[in-house]
Amino acid sequence: MALRSILNSMCLGNRAACCRFPLHPPHAPVRRASCQPRSGFKPEKVAVVTKTTRFEFELQRYRYAGLAEEDLKQLLALKGSSYSGLLERHDIHTSNVEHVVRSLERAGIEVQLVKRGAYNEEVVRWADAIVSAGGDGTMLLVASKVLSKDKPVVGVNTDPERSEGHLCLPVRYTRAFPEALDKLCRGEFRWLWRQRIRLHLEGTGINPTPVDLHEQQLSLEQHSQAHRSDSQQRSGTLHQSVSTPSLLPVRGLNEIFIGESLSSSPSTSSMLTCPELIRASYYEISVEDGPWEKQKSSGLSICTGTGSKAWSYNINKLAEQAVEEVLKIGRSQAGMDVPLSREFIEKVTDEYNQSLVFSPDDRRLLFSIREPIVNRVFSSGRQRGFASKSVRARSVWTCRTGPVLTGLSLCATAGCVCARGAGTPAWWWTEGRPSSSTTEPSPPSAPVRRTS
Amino acid sequence: MALRSILNSMCLGNRAACCRFPLHPPHAPVRRASCQPRSGFKPEKVAVVTKTTRFEFELQRYRYAGLAEEDLKQLLALKGSSYSGLLERHDIHTSNVEHVVRSLERAGIEVQLVKRGAYNEEVVRWADAIVSAGGDGTMLLVASKVLSKDKPVVGVNTDPERSEGHLCLPVRYTRAFPEALDKLCRGEFRWLWRQRIRLHLEGTGINPTPVDLHEQQLSLEQHSQAHRSDSQQRSGTLHQSVSTPSLLPVRGLNEIFIGESLSSSPSTSSMLTCPELIRASYYEISVEDGPWEKQKSSGLSICTGTGSKAWSYNINKLAEQAVEEVLKIGRSQAGMDVPLSREFIEKVTDEYNQSLVFSPDDRRLLFSIREPIVNRVFSSGRQRGFASKSVRARSVWTCRTGPVLTGLSLCATAGCVCARGAGTPAWWWTEGRPSSSTTEPSPPSAPVRRTS
Repeated sequence: MALRSILNSMCLGNRAACCRFPLHPPHAPVRRASCQPRSGFKPEKVAVVTKTTRFEFELQRYRYAGLAEEDLKQLLALKGSSYSGLLERHDIHTSNVEHVVRSLERAGIEVQLVKRGAYNEEVVRWADAIVSAGGDGTMLLVASKVLSKDKPVVGVNTDPERSEGHLCLPVRYTRAFPEALDKLCRGEFRWLWRQRIRLHLEGTGINPTPVDLHEQQLSLEQHSQAHRSDSQQRSGTLHQSVSTPSLLPVRGLNEIFIGESLSSSPSTSSMLTCPELIRASYYEISVEDGPWEKQKSSGLSICTGTGSKAWSYNINKLAEQAVEEVLKIGRSQAGMDVPLSREFIEKVTDEYNQSLVFSPDDRRLLFSIREPIVNRVFSSGRQRGFASKSVRARSVWTCRTGPVLTGLSLCATAGCVCARGAGTPAWWWTEGRPSSSTTEPSPPSAPVRRTS
Repeated sequence: MALRSILNSMCLGNRAACCRFPLHPPHAPVRRASCQPRSGFKPEKVAVVTKTTRFEFELQRYRYAGLAEEDLKQLLALKGSSYSGLLERHDIHTSNVEHVVRSLERAGIEVQLVKRGAYNEEVVRWADAIVSAGGDGTMLLVASKVLSKDKPVVGVNTDPERSEGHLCLPVRYTRAFPEALDKLCRGEFRWLWRQRIRLHLEGTGINPTPVDLHEQQLSLEQHSQAHRSDSQQRSGTLHQSVSTPSLLPVRGLNEIFIGESLSSSPSTSSMLTCPELIRASYYEISVEDGPWEKQKSSGLSICTGTGSKAWSYNINKLAEQAVEEVLKIGRSQAGMDVPLSREFIEKVTDEYNQSLVFSPDDRRLLFSIREPIVNRVFSSGRQRGFASKSVRARSVWTCRTGPVLTGLSLCATAGCVCARGAGTPAWWWTEGRPSSSTTEPSPPSAPVRRTS
């Protein structure tokens, strides 16, 4: 089924959307689905979702540990005098948030300021549009809960010096947000598809309610408790199982990471196996509903075109050093005498790494097996590849592990995870003139102005 | 300073020691330091350290969660009926441990059976020799606490069907342990160097007592508590700092992993940053006491020759798929028309991957930056390389992070970690005839028979 899920996102001249994806995917033509809206868009109610700054995090953490603020200052000072640094970033962020809120209010828009921990479906329902005020991480979380196609999401990078902000508006709008609002109202933007990922869980002992990892950051105890209290509630019904795949109420804009969420290393035969902290994931993978293949690795990543520049890229990219070595060995094995200049190696490396990236509007998913362990038990199938239909993984997970959707941790004790192209792709507004030809159907009309 | 730490380990015909390391390291000749002992060795007191089986782990975990054993059975059944499977592996392990213990006792040797959680310096002091009864992980832990050169360590693989046992005796000795004892007594073994890693910590808020991650596996709460209670104890002395590097009472046989011990992914600009669970490590690295270089990655691995077949290998190895792609691009960029047969690609891949492995007696360390993130802030220096003197890393870590020595987690809030070749290499006993020439000094005489 080729259902689509639309995310209306405002992205004026976002580099990621416009310029960064070369037409590389070898198997399918890239659809430049980019269309001009028929009219502008003026929301009446906007929710502004803010990130938790590092300063706030440290403050909360030490309060949780029972330390006074003075102790915090000393402790941070011991850590390298970063107290004032953290406070400075915090103030910059806060000031930029205030600028956004004031700009919206001056435009006669009702604003609800929401910390990310309090951001939920109710907020999404209330708002006509949502502004993410933070970095890319905040943007990803905000987008993940917007399932409808009538709800624009706008990302403002509140700390451009520290945050890359690939998914946010260009940096100039951070202190000039009224300009962005203006363009929105006048319809001076373009729609662009961003494919997302739907996730189905099937199996036993599943808790389909995602746990926001970021909000659990204060304490791992909270994280495991969040999962455990659910499983204890369920322990009275030990025979509960989910026989039909359960579609989760979230969408992956970048990627799904499947595996031990606390795994930092592959557990090879000579590594200490520590089930909770450092270990490999044992699972089986099936691509395009094909045969199941056993794998042991540091996890499995399934990404979209948008996400192909993110984690997946770092998993798969090669350093020049490695490319040079491969070429040297190849040259030597082939008994040839070809010069390998620095420039040549750079070009080959760049081309290789660029090939890992594909267009956000590409409907395919790219799966990557991270640090595969190949031995007498586990096969050496493809380390990565495209899927147009689905990628499935099944395993037995403990309560602290399981699929991770860019920061949301899902608990399933035994289950099968199925990731599919997320039905309606996310529409993404971009700046500039629309492309002259498109074979795509017209985008939905701009969200209707809500009547109060 | 070229101090060495010797680990006397018995390894009869261990494949890792004898056959698997091609003479590849390009910078230094491999020293085949392999010598026949002058006499046999008969210990009077042997400690047998056993692993915790998966079955025991699950049992303890659910007891900790307050579930009865019946519930455990049901829960495991829901997970895929692995209860009987786990029990089976547990019984196999237990039976093999009993065989080892009985063999030692029949040889008139006093035996102390110790669970790995109870294994400490006192046990090491008491014993003349130590038998590790488990897999490679147990072997690594057992070896890590043996600092003296007079203490042989013997690894018995108690579940050959499930465990690779690279560092253990060949599988045939698992049920024929008296034969191994025999060879030991008759001196029918060889010494082989295994270089290890010394670790210095310097900085503030350091708790130099390693926390055994494996023993913390029952509960992350315990793990963080173990670190936190120490830091709370220290919170009364917030100005405590370690001005001189503190040498840790452990030795790394495989590798040191430095970074967020809970990091499972790089935190790119578009990933959710979640400080406690999924994030990149920010640190600086200095090789051979050279200039400091900023890095952001999934961590830093520093391994020995022994460890070059382990985690480091999985971090660095390439899949045929990647090698094929590089060669194709290279061919295309060079405008050449060279056939790339499956066989050719396999050969290049194998040669590349083999080059990642070096000899256990090589004194160098190999550092690898895992999933480096390169952007406007972080440089793209070498992704990996050798060091003969030292590799240093410095950062600000939280209490749940910091350097990980193959399963031991070290807590330092702000610090510099310095890994050096571990002084005296570990002597490893191997089966077979000694090599005819060696330029190495004679090995220490076989451990003296202790008088009671």
